Amino acid sequence: MNTKRSRMSAEDRRTAILDVATDLLSTHPWEEVTVALLLDAAGISKGGFYHHFTSKDDVLAAVLLRLTEASNSAGQAVYERSEGGAAARFTAYLGGTTRWELEHADKIMGVIRIAMMAGNEAIFLKLEQEARRRATPLMRTLVEEGVREGIFDVIDVDMTVDLLQHAWRMRWVVFAQARQRCATGDLAGGEAMLGERLRLEERMTNRLLGCDAATPVLMPAVGEFLGFLQAP
Amino acid sequence: MNTKRSRMSAEDRRTAILDVATDLLSTHPWEEVTVALLLDAAGISKGGFYHHFTSKDDVLAAVLLRLTEASNSAGQAVYERSEGGAAARFTAYLGGTTRWELEHADKIMGVIRIAMMAGNEAIFLKLEQEARRRATPLMRTLVEEGVREGIFDVIDVDMTVDLLQHAWRMRWVVFAQARQRCATGDLAGGEAMLGERLRLEERMTNRLLGCDAATPVLMPAVGEFLGFLQAP
Repeated sequence: MNTKRSRMSAEDRRTAILDVATDLLSTHPWEEVTVALLLDAAGISKGGFYHHFTSKDDVLAAVLLRLTEASNSAGQAVYERSEGGAAARFTAYLGGTTRWELEHADKIMGVIRIAMMAGNEAIFLKLEQEARRRATPLMRTLVEEGVREGIFDVIDVDMTVDLLQHAWRMRWVVFAQARQRCATGDLAGGEAMLGERLRLEERMTNRLLGCDAATPVLMPAVGEFLGFLQAP
Repeated sequence: MNTKRSRMSAEDRRTAILDVATDLLSTHPWEEVTVALLLDAAGISKGGFYHHFTSKDDVLAAVLLRLTEASNSAGQAVYERSEGGAAARFTAYLGGTTRWELEHADKIMGVIRIAMMAGNEAIFLKLEQEARRRATPLMRTLVEEGVREGIFDVIDVDMTVDLLQHAWRMRWVVFAQARQRCATGDLAGGEAMLGERLRLEERMTNRLLGCDAATPVLMPAVGEFLGFLQAP
């Protein structure tokens, strides 16, 4: 262990701590995760830890921002591969980021669980704002391209991007409730709940974009969520 | 002073502290306001203070929520006096709350100044959310009435109210910038900036409400803001 530790660069150590914290997030209530547990699981010394972080909450902030960066990269990659008109590219972006989120659903739900805990609201609102800020440039590009193509008719690009992000922000809370309902045996009810949320967001997204009704932006279909809904 | 103090009920003491804090908010940077200064200005003992509050930040939270309550009461009163169709009543509500805010502009700008200070973002986001939560019931009523009258065509009442509040949230930051511009001598520039913000919010409000174009909801006119813009 010592050999391994001595070979790790500062950056590797930081990554190791974040990897371990991200895993623990999916399996442990955050209040049970201690700095000692993180050190042990990551094979890092106390000094190595405090070189990068001031507390376990500081680690949590870094985990969240790393998840955000990864989600943004996935969105960017999908956008770059996307074809067709602005509405089709926006649809591809929504599908790509949603698929990425579904692949990381356990981590996202771990984060939501922590965010919902009493006393955590203030710091989470701030982190959420930071996460949104990072997603903004690509969203602005997507909206501006649609405006240029005459497909979108927005009131104001910046306010539209801000409101779109706000409209989508509670989705994972609803997705988690839908999965919970499926877990109690009501699969149809859970699917309906999730589908309703997707349709609501889709309609609001098209309204905010002033999207041409002939070529609407589409949210992913409920079918894409079946694996998530039926997970044990 | 002692006689006066002994005659104050617990509720009066709390009010006295909030009154003094609200005044100090308009005139002093919050970091210069100490609990000792609050006690002195309110004529309250240390014990009397800590009976109601745990810290000066706790006082700030209470000041903000009291401002919110007062603003909501003003909005409610205007709503109850308002006549005509749903769009006219919504317009009256917007005008009434804006006029109330203009009368309390120094306090609101004091609050914004504190909110913008490094380290205060997280707690302010939480307080802002709480303030919005309290304004929600009346907003929901206004929207639902318009839907019933067939004047508004909303995607979803709750999401619409949430997005309307989000669309309006940065207005006082822009108003403060507009006043700043006027203070530097560029009165026309300040007025234009403020007018542009009002038009933007008006257009977004009507889009979110799906308001009948023949009877739009209207934001107050720039003329109502001249006293605010030209204040020393």
